[in-house]
Amino acid sequence: MARRRYVEAKMRETARLFGFGEVMTPTFESTELFVARSGEGIIDELYAFEDKGNRKISLRPELTASVMRFYVNDMQNLPKPVKLFYFGNCFRYERPQAGRYREFFQLGAELIGAPSIESDAEVIALALATLKNLGLEDVVVRIGHLEIIKGLLSDIGIEGGEQKHCMAYIDKHDYSGLDDYLTGQKKKTKAKKLLDIIELTKDQYGKADKKVIDYAEIIAPGITRTVNGLNYLKNVMERLGTYGFKDYRVDFGVARGLDYYTGMVFEIDAPSLGAEKQICGGGAYTLAGLFGGQEVNSTGYAFGFDRIMLALEKSGVNVPHQNLSVYILPIGDEAKIAAIKILSELRNAGISADMDLMGRNMSKAMKYAASINADKVILIGDKELADGSLTVRDMKTGNQEKVPISDIKDYL
Amino acid sequence: MARRRYVEAKMRETARLFGFGEVMTPTFESTELFVARSGEGIIDELYAFEDKGNRKISLRPELTASVMRFYVNDMQNLPKPVKLFYFGNCFRYERPQAGRYREFFQLGAELIGAPSIESDAEVIALALATLKNLGLEDVVVRIGHLEIIKGLLSDIGIEGGEQKHCMAYIDKHDYSGLDDYLTGQKKKTKAKKLLDIIELTKDQYGKADKKVIDYAEIIAPGITRTVNGLNYLKNVMERLGTYGFKDYRVDFGVARGLDYYTGMVFEIDAPSLGAEKQICGGGAYTLAGLFGGQEVNSTGYAFGFDRIMLALEKSGVNVPHQNLSVYILPIGDEAKIAAIKILSELRNAGISADMDLMGRNMSKAMKYAASINADKVILIGDKELADGSLTVRDMKTGNQEKVPISDIKDYL
Repeated sequence: MARRRYVEAKMRETARLFGFGEVMTPTFESTELFVARSGEGIIDELYAFEDKGNRKISLRPELTASVMRFYVNDMQNLPKPVKLFYFGNCFRYERPQAGRYREFFQLGAELIGAPSIESDAEVIALALATLKNLGLEDVVVRIGHLEIIKGLLSDIGIEGGEQKHCMAYIDKHDYSGLDDYLTGQKKKTKAKKLLDIIELTKDQYGKADKKVIDYAEIIAPGITRTVNGLNYLKNVMERLGTYGFKDYRVDFGVARGLDYYTGMVFEIDAPSLGAEKQICGGGAYTLAGLFGGQEVNSTGYAFGFDRIMLALEKSGVNVPHQNLSVYILPIGDEAKIAAIKILSELRNAGISADMDLMGRNMSKAMKYAASINADKVILIGDKELADGSLTVRDMKTGNQEKVPISDIKDYL
Repeated sequence: MARRRYVEAKMRETARLFGFGEVMTPTFESTELFVARSGEGIIDELYAFEDKGNRKISLRPELTASVMRFYVNDMQNLPKPVKLFYFGNCFRYERPQAGRYREFFQLGAELIGAPSIESDAEVIALALATLKNLGLEDVVVRIGHLEIIKGLLSDIGIEGGEQKHCMAYIDKHDYSGLDDYLTGQKKKTKAKKLLDIIELTKDQYGKADKKVIDYAEIIAPGITRTVNGLNYLKNVMERLGTYGFKDYRVDFGVARGLDYYTGMVFEIDAPSLGAEKQICGGGAYTLAGLFGGQEVNSTGYAFGFDRIMLALEKSGVNVPHQNLSVYILPIGDEAKIAAIKILSELRNAGISADMDLMGRNMSKAMKYAASINADKVILIGDKELADGSLTVRDMKTGNQEKVPISDIKDYL
């Protein structure tokens, strides 16, 4: 928990540096809210139930829907943009994976109501700065745009459910599955441009070279939606470069699972995690209208907090941990009273301190102090009381020193 | 949220100074766990439901049961004492009150496995130090012991359900209700000692004078449980005095609602909150045995976090809030690029900074910067780009200064 709270505070601090303000929403919402966002199918994955008043409620599976409901209810009249972040637990009734439990934590951000290129760049910049501030360097950022592929699919008459089906293959980077599907639908020959463009960033880690955008423009010159998507992506990349971020990949295969994404989409992987490596997902979306508000540009993302904790561990990133500074061992009844007084004095001075409550003897107390990683042990017995001094033992070096009681605060 | 997170961090820091380590448990548990702790009646107050695997689960109504389950499962073999604290949300299906919502937050601590007087004093000391560190001075701490009243009730033959009924009146400080009940049960004359002892601390804020213990001993000399309870309380009070805490009251009317409390019990009120003023409750208890573990002394408490937030507000305690340091307004396309670069540089240096994404003109941008409480606004236009300087406006004083771009970090 000390490690988790440290990481949480670091992430919160980065959001504050970017001018994002924290919000919190209830743990459960009307089931309706999540169905509106993701369709009836979502119920299978929810902890959905009826409360004692027969209201259908669900533990939240993610927080964007809740934050946008909050925005629509209470924040529509605020001057734009509204920059929000959140940290909270979510619940999904699904098979647990590595770093993905049935109850899990997300830390995410939403930028609402600014022009979209500006929003997209600012939001990606926040995600990248957060990871940088955590010291998690070994990450791959993949940026795409939904219109690039959707334009090509529409161009060859793949729309609606068929298009969703194809996007699902792409989302999983399952290109041979896509190939088979297109062959089965007798679309394979017509889909040459699509397959050529996919070929450009087919590598699961995308392509670092921004020239893929130029190549893609050469492949699909007449297809307006695709070309617009490519140009848009180029603008976001340029702006991100101005922010000082250049270390990302282009990946036309970022499709995200959900319908409400509208344009730019991005994902971040921590390759050290192996197969289940995604630690962040986000993009541009519209949801306010769906929840009864005025439609508005939004861009957001969510970090999988538990996976970030795992990634930090696997990447050997040290998270500072504060040991207990002092463990006090009084020997004898009079010493106990003196010990409590010193204990209180140290704690009041902001020095973490504990004392023996068990009546342990010296050797057992030393073992206990070592087991709780105390930095120092203070011994008070009759001798110490008589000469008004304390014996302070450094648990790392084993050195012992006599320190006058009145100097102990300064000494520590 | 900024205020809440500040208070949360302050409370966490105090627990760390006392050598308590943070734990976290799941948001829901088997309904059984809460029934074992509090009886079948609790189900009416729970968000209880069945999951898709037909398991009966409930959103936790408090955290002691969860923490003790965790202790029994995973921490019984740790060297004693085990000192734990937690911060988490809880859920009760009941009528919301001021500062008490259906979803609410508790921050609490449990000290497990040390001798009871030592534990009781350490735990009360932590609660008091936490409030002191928050600057919440206007509180009343009431300390009692269940055996004092229970001994007297047993002495006149009031046991079992009857005793619980009487304890419920006492818990509510409803002494006229108790009087009527005893009269109805024809116990009024026999209960003279009980009523005399209650009279000693009948004031809803208890009695500050420790002599009430001596008076009580004079009233009930032969009743062993009562006398033991009184002596125990005296010892806890003495030890608390050594810690430096003397500002508490004796209240024989602290009964706590729950069966598992065994001895010392305490509550803390914030009188500024009016009728719903209790912000903390706790005491000595045993629960490990009930959950299948080896029985062990424990003392713990929980703060009502939301009520503490209200009490801080009502008592006028200032919680520091960090404004956005800088809002950058670029005028023109070239200025936008320069603005992004300065923005990133400031954020990297730990200075919170935001910039106009909306293309606002000067007067609208100033209004926006004021609305988000920015400390300073930086202006960059053609003039500034030409001479490599920035115009920095202090939003409090209205003063404007020219600052070379290269000096801006140091200047801020």
